[in-house]
Amino acid sequence: MFNRLIEFLKRKMLYGLGLVALLTVSVFADEPSVKSNVTAIDTVWTLIAAFLVFFMQAGFAMVESGFTRAKNAANIMMKNLMDFSVGSLAYWLIGFGLMFGASKAGLFGTDNFFFRSADPSTSEGLWQFAYWMFQVVFAATAATIVSGAMAERTKFSAYLFYSVFITAFIYPVVGHWIWGGGWLSSKGIIDFAGSTVVHSVGGWAALAGALLLGPRLGKYNKDGSSNAIPGHNIPIAALGVFILWFGWFGFNTGSTTSGTNLSIAVIAVTTNLAAASGSVFAMIVTWIKYGKPDTSMALNGALAGLVGITAGCASVSALSAVIIGGLAGILVVFSVGFIDKVLKIDDPVGAVSVHGVCGAWGTLSVGLFAEAKYGAASGVGGVNGLFFGGGPSLFITQLIGVLSVFFWVFSSALLVFFVAKKLIGLRASDEEQLKGLDISEHGMESYSGFQIFTTE
Amino acid sequence: MFNRLIEFLKRKMLYGLGLVALLTVSVFADEPSVKSNVTAIDTVWTLIAAFLVFFMQAGFAMVESGFTRAKNAANIMMKNLMDFSVGSLAYWLIGFGLMFGASKAGLFGTDNFFFRSADPSTSEGLWQFAYWMFQVVFAATAATIVSGAMAERTKFSAYLFYSVFITAFIYPVVGHWIWGGGWLSSKGIIDFAGSTVVHSVGGWAALAGALLLGPRLGKYNKDGSSNAIPGHNIPIAALGVFILWFGWFGFNTGSTTSGTNLSIAVIAVTTNLAAASGSVFAMIVTWIKYGKPDTSMALNGALAGLVGITAGCASVSALSAVIIGGLAGILVVFSVGFIDKVLKIDDPVGAVSVHGVCGAWGTLSVGLFAEAKYGAASGVGGVNGLFFGGGPSLFITQLIGVLSVFFWVFSSALLVFFVAKKLIGLRASDEEQLKGLDISEHGMESYSGFQIFTTE
Amino acid sequence: MFNRLIEFLKRKMLYGLGLVALLTVSVFADEPSVKSNVTAIDTVWTLIAAFLVFFMQAGFAMVESGFTRAKNAANIMMKNLMDFSVGSLAYWLIGFGLMFGASKAGLFGTDNFFFRSADPSTSEGLWQFAYWMFQVVFAATAATIVSGAMAERTKFSAYLFYSVFITAFIYPVVGHWIWGGGWLSSKGIIDFAGSTVVHSVGGWAALAGALLLGPRLGKYNKDGSSNAIPGHNIPIAALGVFILWFGWFGFNTGSTTSGTNLSIAVIAVTTNLAAASGSVFAMIVTWIKYGKPDTSMALNGALAGLVGITAGCASVSALSAVIIGGLAGILVVFSVGFIDKVLKIDDPVGAVSVHGVCGAWGTLSVGLFAEAKYGAASGVGGVNGLFFGGGPSLFITQLIGVLSVFFWVFSSALLVFFVAKKLIGLRASDEEQLKGLDISEHGMESYSGFQIFTTE
Repeated sequence: MFNRLIEFLKRKMLYGLGLVALLTVSVFADEPSVKSNVTAIDTVWTLIAAFLVFFMQAGFAMVESGFTRAKNAANIMMKNLMDFSVGSLAYWLIGFGLMFGASKAGLFGTDNFFFRSADPSTSEGLWQFAYWMFQVVFAATAATIVSGAMAERTKFSAYLFYSVFITAFIYPVVGHWIWGGGWLSSKGIIDFAGSTVVHSVGGWAALAGALLLGPRLGKYNKDGSSNAIPGHNIPIAALGVFILWFGWFGFNTGSTTSGTNLSIAVIAVTTNLAAASGSVFAMIVTWIKYGKPDTSMALNGALAGLVGITAGCASVSALSAVIIGGLAGILVVFSVGFIDKVLKIDDPVGAVSVHGVCGAWGTLSVGLFAEAKYGAASGVGGVNGLFFGGGPSLFITQLIGVLSVFFWVFSSALLVFFVAKKLIGLRASDEEQLKGLDISEHGMESYSGFQIFTTE
Repeated sequence: MFNRLIEFLKRKMLYGLGLVALLTVSVFADEPSVKSNVTAIDTVWTLIAAFLVFFMQAGFAMVESGFTRAKNAANIMMKNLMDFSVGSLAYWLIGFGLMFGASKAGLFGTDNFFFRSADPSTSEGLWQFAYWMFQVVFAATAATIVSGAMAERTKFSAYLFYSVFITAFIYPVVGHWIWGGGWLSSKGIIDFAGSTVVHSVGGWAALAGALLLGPRLGKYNKDGSSNAIPGHNIPIAALGVFILWFGWFGFNTGSTTSGTNLSIAVIAVTTNLAAASGSVFAMIVTWIKYGKPDTSMALNGALAGLVGITAGCASVSALSAVIIGGLAGILVVFSVGFIDKVLKIDDPVGAVSVHGVCGAWGTLSVGLFAEAKYGAASGVGGVNGLFFGGGPSLFITQLIGVLSVFFWVFSSALLVFFVAKKLIGLRASDEEQLKGLDISEHGMESYSGFQIFTTE
Repeated sequence: MFNRLIEFLKRKMLYGLGLVALLTVSVFADEPSVKSNVTAIDTVWTLIAAFLVFFMQAGFAMVESGFTRAKNAANIMMKNLMDFSVGSLAYWLIGFGLMFGASKAGLFGTDNFFFRSADPSTSEGLWQFAYWMFQVVFAATAATIVSGAMAERTKFSAYLFYSVFITAFIYPVVGHWIWGGGWLSSKGIIDFAGSTVVHSVGGWAALAGALLLGPRLGKYNKDGSSNAIPGHNIPIAALGVFILWFGWFGFNTGSTTSGTNLSIAVIAVTTNLAAASGSVFAMIVTWIKYGKPDTSMALNGALAGLVGITAGCASVSALSAVIIGGLAGILVVFSVGFIDKVLKIDDPVGAVSVHGVCGAWGTLSVGLFAEAKYGAASGVGGVNGLFFGGGPSLFITQLIGVLSVFFWVFSSALLVFFVAKKLIGLRASDEEQLKGLDISEHGMESYSGFQIFTTE
């Protein structure tokens, strides 16, 4: 995205002689022009997209609480509220500078902490605010993904602790590598809206967390077999998925940060078809595997399709989007089973599979399905993937990206969780889990008045 | 809408000499211009409206599940997820071509299946993606309406079957007639955002389905009297109505597919006032009729007002919108009673009344309330209705539209449901209905942990 | 906002010679121009913002019902539906004219009732529709705030009665004073998006209502001590807060009523940071005060931060927004305790504290934190507050605004509630409260099938 920002500035530089005047006198004293309208359209677009991405926080909260038990719902609301709130402040203080500041050897940014460059007196300065707004909602998305995998057993104080580290350090470093002009960006990696930058970062941090935290009380039997712990509110989980799908239109199309870049229309179409295909194929797989079409898995299939298309949404055709999304929908079913039954890691909402695994798949898929004519239109770059005559080089770059991000995120997150464990303690006690985190952590019930039986 | 597309293209053609260059070289190499900004504003507007219309899927899901029983909620989520997902793929493969392809005698389109014309390398091609995106969310709306009328007793496999047919065949044919340059379009019918094209199509297909399917177990007594089966979650139903109202702003104002067409402002106002008036008048009628103001009916009244204004939103004044919406709100109360008690057709959420009956009323109302100055501003056409000195001709055209669409949809839907009944079976068994479709069809519960008593 | 409208018209006047033609011939026959694109961008922006503000109605409904008991949820849905529906009609008939009509001595407007000026045949006329749309959703917000403070014990008929008066009279008068060119506007008060105009109006009317209505049955013991009455659905309350935060982006940034005013980006950033800060600091205070971080209060803290920044969102820096929002988050915790335990006024959702008290704080904060460079960019006016070298004059103006609006709203609302009490009766009987208003007022249950124990 840094490149796009540069591009944006360059384009404006070329727009004739009025620019100096535009920058030195107040923008409002100026006559409007074709160029000032371009800036306005781009700003409007970027902000509306940012608002939609913000709304995804509601989606994550609903999905996570719907798929878990009633006794932890208020705790989940609190976590989702706080990863955005604390995250907004942390990203403002540190994250944005680390991601988009002047690069130290392509590894991380080194200035503009505290959003110091904020300057409302020029058109360019105002644009920077829009750009910051778009970035902060992305940062918070990465953090909120982790919450789901660690649901129903994490101490709230520890949650706050590691949430800050993800938003302030772990995520921005990856962001710098790929969107901030860092080393992976120089290699030509394509991760348009963040299959890797956002979703895999969330997914791999979730994996590290779930691993160190251990399973929920009662999740695994002595013989190692796994118990299903059903969610308490499927309609609200489904609402969450619809909200996420809705917000994802902002997530992917907004990543142009330009409404005058007409490829936003292509991106909307590929995003939608991949999600549709993901849910259909996830449903088909469960129907074959379990004899019945599973609602929860079909919902996760839609999310898998969305995560899968996020990297390539501006580089592939509608048909490719259907294939990428459909494969993500299939992948997520098997991945959830594998993590639950083989790895025996307890991930209550399937966050590692949806965001980590499908994020990796989505990033790799660009190396296979990219078509130059789509990338050229969107400004991502006119490269062909392996299936369209482009040779293996793009795929290899994407693979390097996937692996290096996994390594960085998984190891740094393990360290953060380890420190949290030692300093504060990561896990709620068995008694607290039995009572539910709503009562033990927040002294309240989520569904006062309702007769509820809690499993375990 | 086809006419509007043509109009759009023509307008662009007239915009001077730069067009050929615009189409032959990359749009991004070009200097931006007044015309490219027009295209950008129109694209941004159309996409945002499409996202809002997509979000209506969440609204339909919440309304339908809120107004039915807890034991079928996961099934309803699955149906709403799948009519959009399967529908997106079906519309991509078949529906869009049938609706907007080259016309066969004004009856249906014959090319551009599979969205073959998709071309990201020109500005015009990119606009086509935006147009497709807007159309796909409309197609899915028609299909999802049917779901409500057939809730709590339909086999899921049959649901998938007929859902595909509605999105791929039944809806696109009507769409071609009215928006795709077909025979009703040539007659000058005005159905701006689809009181008939979308809502009546959904409503009449719902009528055919509910008729063939029969009532829910326990709905009617031996003496023919009807039992009320109360919904399980009124707040979520209300949330659904608010989401629908919100999305409807996109539905109606987006149907300009142009943000530079300033009549979007008029459309927003008429849409809002009709909805407000619909809910107020529905409340008043129930208050008089039953002695208490009924929440469910007031919610349905808002939807009735929205459906009613959808055809004429760009052709009528604010006052006329209040009248049209208010009459829709009154109509829906009586229609629900009539269908339930006289026709003895079980429609759990009132979909036939809200979408079918009020859709017909809305379409006819244009023939009465249209004012030339509104239609001229919006580009719909400067025609006056019967009440504004225009004579009966518009009303007659609207009536022909209402009747012919009813005939086509009702008969073709009956056929599809009949085939589904023979091939797969349409109706869940009594035992399955008793257990609830969540368990029998999907092997899960919606509200695990909650103590629930299910009626019947 | 009236000033901004004038400003807007003036700006357009200056835009060269094409204007007369633009106004006399149809806008659609015209070639598009830089100026017509400015109008289109501004219209698109204003409408989308209006849609987002409309969606806040869903947020208010969810917050209010989530924080109260299950037996009153359908009543709360009905109230929230109706304050918007009846309010839309009342604002159309009376409110808009009173707010923006030709001023009578700076006190209230005197024409354009019934939206008589509506004229779709010119570009200016069409803009008026957009402006009206934006205003009507604001008016309804003020009314809906009252609903929460009077929840669970108000007669529905009385609710309708006073709701009309707030939207048609009490709110528009304040709106005229500050946004309609009235006496406070002449003094230079800054209340950009309505900390006072919308939120304090709602909050002070709520205070008057709760005072006259008395507490819920069982809220206070004989010794004067207060019982907590826990809400029945925390996830849905949290969803409501996320929806409100989402809609607030439209509320604040849309108050430019211009997408070509690039300070919309600054406003988005200050809005977001204040909300984040509000929830974090409210959480911290409850953690210290009660030993546990309270979910409900953190949610209210986010709303407090949003209310607090609403007046100054276009006049302050990001850092100031963090401080203003954080102080609002602290303030709301103490205010809720004070009103509940010291004043012994029963406000089930804390509406008086969130909207009244934090609205006043937000309005005053502009007098402290305003920076000329922000206000100049947004067009609010380049004034400095007390902390930035501007002297006390702005603070004093803000204080005069806060006090005079309190006086007008509290006294006129008391009168309206008093009349309602005498004419219809304000309070549901003890028996009705015990049964719940869903059954007693609307003859229905909200959660049919669920086993529910109602407190008291």
